[in-house]
This record gives sequence, C-alpha cells and structure tokens, in this order.
Amino acid sequence: MKKYLPLLLILLWSCQAEVEDTKEQSTPEKPEWAIVIHGGAGNIQQNGFSQERQAEYQQKLEEAIKVGSVILENGGTSLEAVEASIHIMENSPLFNAGKGAVFNALGQNEMDASIMDGESGKAGAVAGVRHIKNPISAAIAVMEKSPHVLLIGEGAEEFSANNEVEITDTSWFYTERRWKSYEKMKQDKHGTVGCVALDKQGNIVAGTSTGGMTMKMPGRVGDSPIIGAGTYADNHTCGISATGHGEFFIRNVVAYDVAAIMKYQGKSIQNAATYVIQDKLKSQNASGGIIGLDGQGNIIMEFNTTAMFRAWGSSKQPVASAVFKGD
Amino acid sequence: MKKYLPLLLILLWSCQAEVEDTKEQSTPEKPEWAIVIHGGAGNIQQNGFSQERQAEYQQKLEEAIKVGSVILENGGTSLEAVEASIHIMENSPLFNAGKGAVFNALGQNEMDASIMDGESGKAGAVAGVRHIKNPISAAIAVMEKSPHVLLIGEGAEEFSANNEVEITDTSWFYTERRWKSYEKMKQDKHGTVGCVALDKQGNIVAGTSTGGMTMKMPGRVGDSPIIGAGTYADNHTCGISATGHGEFFIRNVVAYDVAAIMKYQGKSIQNAATYVIQDKLKSQNASGGIIGLDGQGNIIMEFNTTAMFRAWGSSKQPVASAVFKGD
Repeated sequence: MKKYLPLLLILLWSCQAEVEDTKEQSTPEKPEWAIVIHGGAGNIQQNGFSQERQAEYQQKLEEAIKVGSVILENGGTSLEAVEASIHIMENSPLFNAGKGAVFNALGQNEMDASIMDGESGKAGAVAGVRHIKNPISAAIAVMEKSPHVLLIGEGAEEFSANNEVEITDTSWFYTERRWKSYEKMKQDKHGTVGCVALDKQGNIVAGTSTGGMTMKMPGRVGDSPIIGAGTYADNHTCGISATGHGEFFIRNVVAYDVAAIMKYQGKSIQNAATYVIQDKLKSQNASGGIIGLDGQGNIIMEFNTTAMFRAWGSSKQPVASAVFKGD
Repeated sequence: MKKYLPLLLILLWSCQAEVEDTKEQSTPEKPEWAIVIHGGAGNIQQNGFSQERQAEYQQKLEEAIKVGSVILENGGTSLEAVEASIHIMENSPLFNAGKGAVFNALGQNEMDASIMDGESGKAGAVAGVRHIKNPISAAIAVMEKSPHVLLIGEGAEEFSANNEVEITDTSWFYTERRWKSYEKMKQDKHGTVGCVALDKQGNIVAGTSTGGMTMKMPGRVGDSPIIGAGTYADNHTCGISATGHGEFFIRNVVAYDVAAIMKYQGKSIQNAATYVIQDKLKSQNASGGIIGLDGQGNIIMEFNTTAMFRAWGSSKQPVASAVFKGD
C-alpha cells in the first residue's frame, strides 16, 4: 500500500487547493451594505492633470457615493442607491453621461444606459437616446414597466416620455469642454459612469450610463447598454459595471465573464476580475476597467489604464475615492 | 494503509469522471467542415401544422443549408457560408427575418442581425433597421468596414448604404401572412434565422437575423443582435446562434454561457447546451433553442419548445432537416 501514499497526498492537496480558492469569496466581516462607483477609465498622464482638477473629480465622486451610502444605511434598496448615485454623475458635466455626454460624428449626443437586478435577474436598457435627461432612469423604466429589456432611439424616448422619465432639450447635454474635444476630433473615451450596490436585504444591482465614444458614427452603441458586456448582476455571484473600449468589452462579454468564472470555476471576484482585465483584455490591447462587488460585500476596482475615477464605501468602511493607479 | 484505500478509490474515480467529460468534446471522426441552421423555435402543435406546410419549410431549410455546404466543400470560408445560407432564409417569406419579418406595434418592420468570427473574435451587428434587404450583410459590413460592433437605426442604414449593402423599400418586407398575424395581435415569436459553420481552415462563424417579436414596442431590440446573447463564436470553444424569447436570452447571456461552460468547466458542447436550454432557461419558463458546433464539428440543436426549424450537414454526413422534437 505504501506506493499509493504520494499519489494520495497529491490528490488530497489538489482538492485542498480548490477548496481554498472558493473560500476566498467569503470574508469574516461581511458588511451590512456596500457600494462602488466609477466615472470612467483612461490613460491619463498624472502630470498633465492638475491637483485642482483631480480634487474636483474626487469631490463629485464622493458626493455621488455618499448619496448612495445614505440610502443603503437607511435600509433603502440597491436599486434606489444605484439610480441616485448615477444621477449625481449624469447631472455633472465632468463625466461622459447625461450632461457632458460626448458628441458623435454629426455633433449630436447619443446616450446609452442599462441596469440589472441581481435578485430577479431582470434588466432594462436604452440606447441611442438624445432627449432623456437621466438615461439610467429610462433603463429602470424599461426594466420595471415594459416587457422588454432593450429599447433604442425614438421608441425608447416615446416609451420614457409615457412613463414619467424626464425629457429634455438637447441643449441640456451640451458642454463647452466636450464640444471643444469634438472640434479637435480628439478621442475622449473615458467618462462613462457606473454604480454597483449591495443592500441590507442582500440584493445586488448594477447600472451603467454613457455618452459613448467621441466622434463615434451615428447609431454606434458600445457595451454600456448591453447586459452581459457593460452591466451584469446576479446575487449568487456578483454585480459588475464596465468602462472602456466598448467594442472589445462587447466581444469579450466582460461583465458576465467575471460572473461565469466565479460560478463555473469557484474563483473569487478579485481573481476573476484580475484575469479578465489584466490578462484577457490586455492581451488584446483593450483598455478599460470594471467595478463590482459580490454577495459578501467584497469590492473590486480593476483597470488596465493609468487611471479610473472611482469611489467606494460600506457599512464597515468610510467612503473614499481615487483616480490614479497608486492612489 | 488499508484504511486509505476507499478514499483513494473515490478520489481516483472523481478525477476519472472529470477527464471523461472533457474527452467527450473530441470525436474520432472530425469532419472537414460542418454547418447547422435554424429557422426559429416555437410551441407549435403538430396536428395544427399540415404535412404540406412542414415539407415547404424543410425544402427551404435544405435549400439554405445546401448553399452553405457547397461553399464549405469547395474550400470557402465559414463567413461566406453563413452569409449565403442566411440570405436564402431572409429572402423567403416563411421566416421572420428580412422578407416576412413581423410587424411592431406601429405596423412597421424593424430588423436586427449579428455575426461573430471565432478566429479573430471580431463581431458586427445592426438593430432597428427598416430598409436593409439582408440585415446579415449589414452586420458583416459593420464587422469588416467599421471600427464599431453595433450600429442602430438610421445610423446603421446610412453606414450600410455607403458600404454597398442593398437598401430596399419597406414594401419588400411586407407579407400578407405576417400582416394578418399582426392584425390579430397574435404572438408569433418563432421564425428568427441563424447559421453556424466550421470551414476547412478550422474557423467557426455564427450569425443570426430576425424581425423580432410581433407587436413589440417600436425600438425594442431582442437577443439576436447582441453578441453573447443571440450570437457568439470562438474557435477554441464553439459557435452558437439562438432563437426564442429574446428578453430571457439577453438576461441569461445564452450564447456565451454555452462557451463559458465549455471553457471554464471542460464540458462538451452538448452537455453545456442541454444545461442552458433544458435546466437554466426552462426553470425560468423561457422558451427557445440554440444551434451550434464546436471546433471538432460536433453539431448541437437544443430546444425546449415542441419545434425548432433546423437543418444540418457536414463532410461526413448528408444534409438533413427536421421540425418537431421527435423528427
């Protein structure tokens, strides 16, 4: 029998290794609630970005995450927190979503947004809308009040108008900074906004809102309104909101891929996120990042660019924000 | 040492079981090429569907798959085969794609299509187009001639017109049968078309084209143009085209889920497809099906409805077609 012993030990060790990886998912101190947001990722040079400008972004990010945190602390739902936090960023000209959305090749704003509820698996999204003040609220209306998941263009706008979503003139979205960027025909990919929250009831919701890509063709839709690519939520795995080069994020089904690795390989959310962003996307020269959290309130913020505008908080830790990698 | 023996045997058996499942993916007789198509899935009562009508469908399905088979046999690419096979179905009034597309709540045809190349990972899609004769060709143009993956509405039409994709009057899509269905406000969900092909070079391409759902809201987009939901292809795993209740297929990221189960759990394409369609979707009362094939030319056609219009063939087996479950 002795000859079996080394084999037995190897087999036992390999099983043990698997079990350990699965265990990573649970932390001893599960927070009652948790929330994480992003305001886009990009390759920004730190020395070309003034401290005043960075402070301005971080102040707005912290304002947004505080609004969501208060809702969660008071027992509100993750859906309410995600909508309220994203509204702050959509209404700020600093980000490429709602007011401040970038311009397409015709000089128009065309916006996309999506939401997914990790408890029910329900989802809603709009794409190519031009007159909806807060696209994330239109996505929520599609999820809650229509039999559909994705509505585009004028159909999405008419549905929104009929469902108490605020319609606005295109001039609302105009900002001089984005117009200058358009006029210079610069690429200005960062600035998509997103939020993932876990509420006291244990439900995860993820949402994303964007103006898309500067100088994009009219009608171009990126990953933000695509469930599975830009947004995904499932209480059993995680919630994810993505930002980056949307075409690659669609092709790689980025948001769902993190959940699939957790579900089918038993990896932790951090291991899954690192693999998708640092290995898979980087090998394709696809830049961007994701934020997310799992059912235990473990927060991830993973990006392969120099910067991702981000903020986070939970019942166990005060809110904080950061921009660059080392921050 | 004897006390370890049962444990050792259990461990060895469990490892063996895993290895066997992985092995299922390769068959001893790999065909040089393979192709599979669908013309939609639905809960059709066999006794309400005349033999003449069934023969008419099967004849058209076999015409479509033969066109693709000849291309593959002559060394053409899977992309060429998928486009040609889908054209036959888009141009036939029998299916809900191109000519014969269903009507939305305003009595308009709004069509969606997508394509993905499993070698490069590139993809293209259009949604909400109303004047493109063959939406699958517009999707291919987006993949090959634009920096984007998904174009919608008028932007998609203008891009197509500028890229030699045939534009047509809305009257081309009109068929009396679909109009009567619209007038009766009937649900008529089946009829989406799709094709997955493996060529002699070992490359997999998957494509899907649809008119969507009868009486859908204007602007509604289902799973067909969503990479990961309605269409997915990766030479390392499989190609998939889906048909069914699109909202559920989006929320479950159906096409990519099959590939993810193969990649992350080492399951065969058949095991992965059975799990997604018969377990996961069925438990949500989500009806529909998928067709697909892996890099070894193993074909799957899995549906949880009474019928899926389908045809298949390879260098090792003559083309054949079927409609109902037992066929």
